[in-house]
Amino acid sequence: MKRDAQALASLAPPNLAVGRHLIADLSGCPASCLADPDLIAAAMLAAARAGHAQVLQQHFHHFGPAQGVTGMLLLMESHISIHTWPEHGYAAVDLFMCGAANAAAALAVLQVQLQASTVREQVIMRGC
Amino acid sequence: MKRDAQALASLAPPNLAVGRHLIADLSGCPASCLADPDLIAAAMLAAARAGHAQVLQQHFHHFGPAQGVTGMLLLMESHISIHTWPEHGYAAVDLFMCGAANAAAALAVLQVQLQASTVREQVIMRGC
Repeated sequence: MKRDAQALASLAPPNLAVGRHLIADLSGCPASCLADPDLIAAAMLAAARAGHAQVLQQHFHHFGPAQGVTGMLLLMESHISIHTWPEHGYAAVDLFMCGAANAAAALAVLQVQLQASTVREQVIMRGC
Repeated sequence: MKRDAQALASLAPPNLAVGRHLIADLSGCPASCLADPDLIAAAMLAAARAGHAQVLQQHFHHFGPAQGVTGMLLLMESHISIHTWPEHGYAAVDLFMCGAANAAAALAVLQVQLQASTVREQVIMRGC
């Protein structure tokens, strides 16, 4: 699996950091995974568990047969979102987690369950 | 209003861009705004309208009196999320919009309605 990870240095870090925001582009995923709302929902919930995050709400929307899924978990620790483009084998994910939750562990689960061959990721420290 | 805007250059842009992801840190907001779930929900919906985005689902969670609000709009065009820390006058916002939706117009509404004195923003081109 190819990983293209780099911390963002374009803006100075905040004086007061409240959490880490992990932005991830997953490519090379089978279209059948990315067009399956049940698989996406299960993968997202497994990711939250792996990250030790507590789910408050969940919503997933399927745009139609063989089309993409858009969804989110609202967490006690902030959120995880996903938007998929089966026609490009691509999923856009972001994981914003505060406290002791582990966004990297959550992303690792999504990489495996969506069978991504390439992941581009960036971490942004959020705060003021 | 102070704005600290800078395009991210730390990762090469994707070959195929599917949308723009606007990450914004809003500071100097009155605590009373950031602890008011009705105000936050109304501001988020007004932001979506300003950005010409179609709302699929909405969820807002209030952590308690004088405490923060966490919420998300799931959009046809992707999502807008918000997480607030009244004790720091701070709101973390991200707006991921595809197609013709206008994330900057949506953010401008949030800046006004949350009475932010400072906004740090970054744009990430999403895709593969």
